[in-house]
Amino acid sequence: MKIVQVGCSGHFSKALAAIASRDDLCLAGFCKGCEDEDSSWFISRYKDKYGFAVYDDPEEMFDRLKPDIAIVNSYFYINSRISTSALERGISVYSEKPVATTLDELYTLRNVYEKSNAHFASMLESRCNPAFYSACCLIRDGKVGEILMVTAQKSYKLGNRPEFYKHRETFGGVIPWVGIHSIDWIRWLSGQEIEPVYAFHDKRHNRNHGDLETAALCVFKLENGGVASNNIDYLRPDGAATHGDDRVRVAGSKGVVEVIGGKARFIDSEGSWEIPLENERNPFELFVNQVSGGPACHISAEDSFRTTEVALKARDMADTCF
Amino acid sequence: MKIVQVGCSGHFSKALAAIASRDDLCLAGFCKGCEDEDSSWFISRYKDKYGFAVYDDPEEMFDRLKPDIAIVNSYFYINSRISTSALERGISVYSEKPVATTLDELYTLRNVYEKSNAHFASMLESRCNPAFYSACCLIRDGKVGEILMVTAQKSYKLGNRPEFYKHRETFGGVIPWVGIHSIDWIRWLSGQEIEPVYAFHDKRHNRNHGDLETAALCVFKLENGGVASNNIDYLRPDGAATHGDDRVRVAGSKGVVEVIGGKARFIDSEGSWEIPLENERNPFELFVNQVSGGPACHISAEDSFRTTEVALKARDMADTCF
Repeated sequence: MKIVQVGCSGHFSKALAAIASRDDLCLAGFCKGCEDEDSSWFISRYKDKYGFAVYDDPEEMFDRLKPDIAIVNSYFYINSRISTSALERGISVYSEKPVATTLDELYTLRNVYEKSNAHFASMLESRCNPAFYSACCLIRDGKVGEILMVTAQKSYKLGNRPEFYKHRETFGGVIPWVGIHSIDWIRWLSGQEIEPVYAFHDKRHNRNHGDLETAALCVFKLENGGVASNNIDYLRPDGAATHGDDRVRVAGSKGVVEVIGGKARFIDSEGSWEIPLENERNPFELFVNQVSGGPACHISAEDSFRTTEVALKARDMADTCF
Repeated sequence: MKIVQVGCSGHFSKALAAIASRDDLCLAGFCKGCEDEDSSWFISRYKDKYGFAVYDDPEEMFDRLKPDIAIVNSYFYINSRISTSALERGISVYSEKPVATTLDELYTLRNVYEKSNAHFASMLESRCNPAFYSACCLIRDGKVGEILMVTAQKSYKLGNRPEFYKHRETFGGVIPWVGIHSIDWIRWLSGQEIEPVYAFHDKRHNRNHGDLETAALCVFKLENGGVASNNIDYLRPDGAATHGDDRVRVAGSKGVVEVIGGKARFIDSEGSWEIPLENERNPFELFVNQVSGGPACHISAEDSFRTTEVALKARDMADTCF
């Protein structure tokens, strides 16, 4: 299967690992996604190992190589346009999240996808994380009962981010970039559609990162009448042991399941215990299998679009909420 | 110092423990707070140990005994009226939280307090809990920097609650009864005034508890422009090791402090560690000391009133929020 990659500003690493591990996968081409993107480090680090040809223009690469799959992860604002170009050519797309940074571009992308015969999935890869996936399996088994409340957290170290993170137009906002994972957990774990009902974001103390928000908080209504919230921040201090502090807690009529610190715990009427974890799955490998006619991968195109839509609506709401 | 107690439906236990531990404190009288309240178990359990006289009417008890302090913790809807009667007589009041279950009654109580020379404090006793108090001390030391986001949780086992919990008029709601603690943490730990901007509550799966809400979620704006949320539930399964799962996380420009599982952790640029805990303090003893002319106790009358006001406004908002 012939694969190309556009851009190197996102989470391509699991895709590259899958390609390296399978003889039937080949990274045939690479192209940066936009003029400003620095891709020299990527080429010098990976060209020899993967043997890809380097192109200057994504569409030229698509037309020359006619790949089966494009991995799209350039600067966030440009990804939807690159994905749209690929889908128009019948190339399946494995896209960085958010799959678009404006609602208009999202709807254009979705329309092109719906007219294509290609596959599409976003890099909401924490669905493959053993703790989150094991929690999901337990919920699907009915152990939590009816879900009444979901609370989630994304907390990251800020560090020093590239210039394009500092501008809303190129970055998109902390809710679509970071918060989208927790929005996805809420939709995926609850198995319910959600709508934002309150959202807030704040860029103070961002250490000269321009528009980049350091804190955000959203509330969503679940379609069953329940509620969910997520708190998002770039305030995790440098002294923390890990880069991120991802959490989700799902409270239902029969039990409470929680992911925290890379572990999953469950409490019900019988007791409280750590859930044995499922094996790690490689999300790109699942996508490749789907493109090859195998079972659906970790996330559908519809979920990829809808989670992005919710994240963008929440961001837009945060721009206007008190 | 002469103390009386009205009602036995709340958190009188720390007050009784303080009275038992000090020779200068005497529980001189007890009276139930309203006709329906079952107090026979309290009298049979504590009368011999404390030697109090039993009265049928709180005002008669106040007039006969002329106590220095009244501990007020009857059915929640009646407490503000009992406290008002005590304050009108110059008796200092140690009241269950919320100190009133309607805004009108709260404002009446506050007005009577302001015209009295008596002291008033609510049983927001988690301010004396070693983990919460130690977190507060660290924040007051400036270790967290400017506070941008506070997230809190109250989760309790439902069990079987008395009849008066099942009616909004007598119970008041899960936000003022349970959530008020987390509202207090947000105000107290941030050192900032807050206003509710979103609130939700839900009574599904309350196992025949009438109006009692099983889940709630509120969002508050901090006066510095930051944000706070609390999630509240009675969904903690019976198999959990403890009755409650109280948490608060305070994220600031210099660090993150968190209370979870009875411990307090702090992360800053230097590292991450468990905070050595301050000693447990008895909140009623602190109140007695204040009434005796000593330093201010764990919570001021103003904070007791304001935290109740925020809780009642959030509850009223939850009645109308989607």
